[in-house]
Amino acid sequence: MNVPQVLAVGGGSVVPIPPLDAVAELAKVTVVDSANDHWPALPDAEVAFVWNFQWAAPGRLLTAAPGLRWIHVAAVGVDRVLSPEIVASDVLVTNSRGVFDRSIAEYVAGLLLAHTKEFRLTYDLQRQRVWRNRVTRTLAGQTVAVVGTGSIGRTIARMLKALEMRVVLVGTRRRLDPEFGEIRVAAELAAVARDCDALVLAAPATERNRGMVDRTVLDALGSDGYLVNIGRGSLVVEDDLVEALASGSLGGAALDVFATEPLPPESPLWRLPNVVVSPHMSADTEGFAQDLVAVFLRNLHRWIKGEPLDNVLDKKLGYVPSTA
Amino acid sequence: MNVPQVLAVGGGSVVPIPPLDAVAELAKVTVVDSANDHWPALPDAEVAFVWNFQWAAPGRLLTAAPGLRWIHVAAVGVDRVLSPEIVASDVLVTNSRGVFDRSIAEYVAGLLLAHTKEFRLTYDLQRQRVWRNRVTRTLAGQTVAVVGTGSIGRTIARMLKALEMRVVLVGTRRRLDPEFGEIRVAAELAAVARDCDALVLAAPATERNRGMVDRTVLDALGSDGYLVNIGRGSLVVEDDLVEALASGSLGGAALDVFATEPLPPESPLWRLPNVVVSPHMSADTEGFAQDLVAVFLRNLHRWIKGEPLDNVLDKKLGYVPSTA
Repeated sequence: MNVPQVLAVGGGSVVPIPPLDAVAELAKVTVVDSANDHWPALPDAEVAFVWNFQWAAPGRLLTAAPGLRWIHVAAVGVDRVLSPEIVASDVLVTNSRGVFDRSIAEYVAGLLLAHTKEFRLTYDLQRQRVWRNRVTRTLAGQTVAVVGTGSIGRTIARMLKALEMRVVLVGTRRRLDPEFGEIRVAAELAAVARDCDALVLAAPATERNRGMVDRTVLDALGSDGYLVNIGRGSLVVEDDLVEALASGSLGGAALDVFATEPLPPESPLWRLPNVVVSPHMSADTEGFAQDLVAVFLRNLHRWIKGEPLDNVLDKKLGYVPSTA
Repeated sequence: MNVPQVLAVGGGSVVPIPPLDAVAELAKVTVVDSANDHWPALPDAEVAFVWNFQWAAPGRLLTAAPGLRWIHVAAVGVDRVLSPEIVASDVLVTNSRGVFDRSIAEYVAGLLLAHTKEFRLTYDLQRQRVWRNRVTRTLAGQTVAVVGTGSIGRTIARMLKALEMRVVLVGTRRRLDPEFGEIRVAAELAAVARDCDALVLAAPATERNRGMVDRTVLDALGSDGYLVNIGRGSLVVEDDLVEALASGSLGGAALDVFATEPLPPESPLWRLPNVVVSPHMSADTEGFAQDLVAVFLRNLHRWIKGEPLDNVLDKKLGYVPSTA
């Protein structure tokens, strides 16, 4: 049986790379830290397991392991790992599609409910010991557009539909979806946003998607509209967003991802009263590290048996193409 | 056709009693304010529409309108209106069952998500411009007990089940429910709470339910447990609750109702860091006043046609008995 050599790159995550004992039963594992300049020579490593998905220098994998054939990323958004060298190479890249779907969907539903029910104002009034009844809205009956038709976008859309929101899905090509009806496209985003109470971004950070939410889209979403970004910061023109939030031409936003992370202390987003800033945490729920290892392990079994891998990226597109 | 005379009692609510033009097309309407000492003589009023459900002196209806036969309350919890005189009288009492179900269920789902995803800590860290990733839990897979099998309790239970929580329903008699399986009873509440991550109170404030959540139940819910009360303050022994929250023997609580409302400024609940205090607002969403009038109007049609009324209270029980 083929016993592959696996280069596992840790570091740079909220949670350290977990013990890889189960992987070591199938493969020869060498764990290195992305921040360490000195790695052992790995001429025979054919597989890499990248824990640090925000690693700025993934091209180093190709020089450290010249025999590399497959990179598995412990994340869904793999924009950082898809460096020009890796895209140009013959190396397969797979991601962890599916692991974070429910966690992120709950996070988004929670943000929309917290906004609609004015929880932050409630906390502020509590701090002042002020009892002030208010009439809020229901989430039911509101319209939300979810940008992204991958498993995260669909799980969000399904949960918001279960909460009786009207859901519009936005993808890369116009088509009829059995579950969500007409899929709209990014070029129509301003028109879609005009009819929405909320816009949720769950799309991959591809070149094509860069800055898809700009001043025009934000103005269309409007002074009662709410933007939620759990995808990637690059989907939004951040300067336009700051301006729309400061002027009130956009009602508010909940942002879990940013152009630069951690969000720099000088960013005006921290202080705008109609913005929620959270530290790229929507996906990270208890057990997620073990789940990520399990996804890699399932694919490693396939690799060893010579079966086709799950979640293979189209490196040009920048995501796993939908089979639907 | 019988044109009834209706005494409508306004005042004392977040939202003033709405215009009753549609009611006036069917009946002779006299609107009074609960706080006003001087009402016109109303010897022929047979119907009362009580807008102020927290009114402390509903017995006044019987002296003001000696011909009274039916009181409709613009609320679901009618504990205040069920004064001893009114319970002892032959007057029918109906409530507005159904109007608030979805609003309250959304509010509860929002509170549980906000707690699980640590939104309040996120807001506090944002105020300090601190980026601190955390690993939270999912709501899916957690166990919640919902006390109350009326339409509010069931709508909450249904929504939390849709969010993949394990839901236990607690009612007044043990039985097998087609939707939620075994209904547990209040006498078992400590045993139920021991297996729960969260306990949601949506029961009516009857004498039987008074203080049903005491030290024993709170200790059973435990230091990781979370209490949500959107029912009535009297369901909880508030002193026990304060002690459990202050000592940490209970993890936290979100309270929308209190023994005394507005919550007095000297209550320690305002300042406990593991408590959310909100001002009895879970039900109040846009359009609720019109919805309440519509419910009364439907019943008034029935009254005029001599049909049986909807939502007739069992005044001894203190709520509308389930037809299931």
